[in-house]
Amino acid sequence: MKINVLTLFPEMYSPVTTDSILGKANEKGLIEINLINIRDFSEDRHRKVDDTPFGGGCGMLMACQPIFDAMKSIGITDGSKRVLYMSPRGEILSKKLLDSLVKEDEITILAGHYEGVDQRVLDYFNMEEVSIGDYVTTGGELPSMVLIDSLSRFLPGVLGNAESVEDESVYSGLLEADQYTKPKEYMGLTVPEVLTSGNHKEIRKFELMNSLEKTAKKRPDLFRKWVKKTKIDDLTEYTKKERKNLSFFIEKLKEKDR
Amino acid sequence: MKINVLTLFPEMYSPVTTDSILGKANEKGLIEINLINIRDFSEDRHRKVDDTPFGGGCGMLMACQPIFDAMKSIGITDGSKRVLYMSPRGEILSKKLLDSLVKEDEITILAGHYEGVDQRVLDYFNMEEVSIGDYVTTGGELPSMVLIDSLSRFLPGVLGNAESVEDESVYSGLLEADQYTKPKEYMGLTVPEVLTSGNHKEIRKFELMNSLEKTAKKRPDLFRKWVKKTKIDDLTEYTKKERKNLSFFIEKLKEKDR
Repeated sequence: MKINVLTLFPEMYSPVTTDSILGKANEKGLIEINLINIRDFSEDRHRKVDDTPFGGGCGMLMACQPIFDAMKSIGITDGSKRVLYMSPRGEILSKKLLDSLVKEDEITILAGHYEGVDQRVLDYFNMEEVSIGDYVTTGGELPSMVLIDSLSRFLPGVLGNAESVEDESVYSGLLEADQYTKPKEYMGLTVPEVLTSGNHKEIRKFELMNSLEKTAKKRPDLFRKWVKKTKIDDLTEYTKKERKNLSFFIEKLKEKDR
Repeated sequence: MKINVLTLFPEMYSPVTTDSILGKANEKGLIEINLINIRDFSEDRHRKVDDTPFGGGCGMLMACQPIFDAMKSIGITDGSKRVLYMSPRGEILSKKLLDSLVKEDEITILAGHYEGVDQRVLDYFNMEEVSIGDYVTTGGELPSMVLIDSLSRFLPGVLGNAESVEDESVYSGLLEADQYTKPKEYMGLTVPEVLTSGNHKEIRKFELMNSLEKTAKKRPDLFRKWVKKTKIDDLTEYTKKERKNLSFFIEKLKEKDR
């Protein structure tokens, strides 16, 4: 997958080009991140890329010319290609959006800076506005890296284990259960006994109940969705009695949620 | 404000320490980012920091010892200080959370990696789990940078203009209106006439109506909240007739929303 990124600060992108898992994916050629410095396309003799907004208001806006020309340099001259613009005004990043992006061979992201970008840029190229959440960052650089990172996890070969993505907390609809690693005891703090029992059925049960409990407490919105879509009787890995206990447990969590 | 960050990849943090607005805030001493490499505290001779989870499951978990010792190195030995752990399981980052964080002189962030961290770490230090959204990244590094960036905007002196934060789209409850900058015409694309009229009252009206329209279309959740909390009659900058027109406009948007 090729990801073009138009930015004023290409040097900020080292976390997704050289470091960590994503850097390796980049090196292996699983993902190609093509950084384009918008400033290189400015026709202004001071390489200016922004100007004051019409109608007043504080801050500066990124102007049309450098962006139109930067887009042209990667062969985009109309609104037919998929171009994302990172903006608090956009659609919130979600699995649904990632699922639709992962099907593309090439996407382009415009990372804004300053107070925003001339609306004609967004309209002309038919850009999809994408937000990573209801908070504001100093620019679109970090949000675009978050998008690239979370997207890259869905690309084959990026993660060591294919299971890892779909099993993830949130995507499965429940938050992840508590996890523990060696040693069994550290500074008097112990691991729940069931996890070291070797009884895999009991372990899975502990994990599901712990997940349900955490989700009900921390994210009642996700808990309600899960309860709505899940039929306990379909969880055939449990005995009838266990399913009854599980239903009872869920009813108690529901009461707390009220 | 001092922000301690415990991480396995301190080199990933250049976007918030050297580049852009945040780098400048760091240089000016408005914000001090103290990067602590967890690996430096590993007592293992191969500097190992992770191990397999009890109870099975794929991936590796960050173990207790290196983190406990890294925390000790910054004077944290119990659950009394404010420590955040970046996790898809956490409270979603919001203005409310940022407002509470900005009051602190010092916060500590644990950026996890691999499949997560031993639950005893979270429990012992009473860590607040924070999520930047319902998607999963390869580690807590980018999410912690997003948190630091969005938090820094609330610190006095970081942004040039104090107005900028509260005026921001999303925090005001409505998405930002379309914005335009020079030139008035670019490749045949023009700026809405009202914005170049010099009539400030008409401009503000255009902006509000454009904001309302965008919000109703893109984020009906925010639109409904705004409509619920706003009394049109309180918008005294408008004449009675204008307020009536505005109410009519909002009713039309509400109909579309249904």
